[in-house]
Amino acid sequence: MLLLSLIIAEAALETVPKYIAKHPSVVKHSSKIGKPASEILLDRSYHHGAMLKLKDAGKRGRPDLVHFALLEATSTPLYHESMLKVYVHTVANRVIFLNENVRLPKSYFRFEGLMEELFKDRRVRSDSNVLMELKDMEFCDLIGKLRPARVVGLSRIGARSSAEEVAKMIDRDTAIVVGGFPRDHFSSKISSKINYTYSISDLALEVHVVIARILYECEKILFK
Amino acid sequence: MLLLSLIIAEAALETVPKYIAKHPSVVKHSSKIGKPASEILLDRSYHHGAMLKLKDAGKRGRPDLVHFALLEATSTPLYHESMLKVYVHTVANRVIFLNENVRLPKSYFRFEGLMEELFKDRRVRSDSNVLMELKDMEFCDLIGKLRPARVVGLSRIGARSSAEEVAKMIDRDTAIVVGGFPRDHFSSKISSKINYTYSISDLALEVHVVIARILYECEKILFK
Repeated sequence: MLLLSLIIAEAALETVPKYIAKHPSVVKHSSKIGKPASEILLDRSYHHGAMLKLKDAGKRGRPDLVHFALLEATSTPLYHESMLKVYVHTVANRVIFLNENVRLPKSYFRFEGLMEELFKDRRVRSDSNVLMELKDMEFCDLIGKLRPARVVGLSRIGARSSAEEVAKMIDRDTAIVVGGFPRDHFSSKISSKINYTYSISDLALEVHVVIARILYECEKILFK
Repeated sequence: MLLLSLIIAEAALETVPKYIAKHPSVVKHSSKIGKPASEILLDRSYHHGAMLKLKDAGKRGRPDLVHFALLEATSTPLYHESMLKVYVHTVANRVIFLNENVRLPKSYFRFEGLMEELFKDRRVRSDSNVLMELKDMEFCDLIGKLRPARVVGLSRIGARSSAEEVAKMIDRDTAIVVGGFPRDHFSSKISSKINYTYSISDLALEVHVVIARILYECEKILFK
């Protein structure tokens, strides 16, 4: 059965890069919580000073934003009814494969622990089931693996449309791509793989709002 | 100008009640973070054992859920364009009055700090502006103060409709009421003040999803 896919692309979710592991703000946070920097999520709330040295710093270190986006997607009837697959492509070119019917924690503290486990062990299990897996993978390789009939991107700089209109063009063989970062746009590596890019509002919408709206409109059509 | 209101009712957001302040799970958490129990948010993740002694325990101690619900509401164009007022009525009968254009933090850690400040000082300021205020107030008194033309509740046990249909009945003089708790239904004190109760899905939807959908459908009508 073909499944609608949602890809949260260039998501601001990664562990602290080696390059800044010795920065005072990282060392302080790491020793406070008693974990090596390599096992801690990069987080602007704690590592702002260190992040100034990073490339594309404005797009990184927002695990809270990715948490919201993922919860929005996995709280939908489309996901609960196994009609939607959800992928997170991260800014450091890893891809999280989320199994069906995973119930992500709403508590950020627990989500953080889950993600740190995933980045460390490459998979998270519950009893005998694999809940999620992490693979080194570029966005283009994920598209190559999924082979959707079309890739629809949602971005403020896309052609002006509405969630309702865009949903009409989406069927089960579509990958919807949203940006998992707080500002700026898709990099060229992402946009070159997108067939159609639309904007669904005149106003800037946060990514979790975009996800809520497009999946809701898709649900209205696919549940008919 | 009349404004659409959203009330998150009986929200699972409160500080640790005195009655359980001496419970070992509370004492341990309180001493670990170095704050008195009366200034800590009740949270099932930490206080599960102590909460077994509380009345209506299943509806309480979920500040993470209220965080999501509030962010969903305040991320909408309706709120950004000052066409929506948002209120949180808590399970312990306090009401949070949110000012216009408040940008709540997505980081739970920061949200928690903000709420603890609000419960302690009764207001949160940024420079000379009051961002939010907390008042002792029953749900019926909030309705008495707002005096909306109609109060529309959304609940799984309401009359079966859809977000689209319910939005058609909503105008700027309406208060929309959703439950800010993880399970169960409105208590009689709430439901007795609601004029119409609707269910917008055959499937159980989390409160943040209900908020996203009803406000989106209202926006389609009110922005026309």
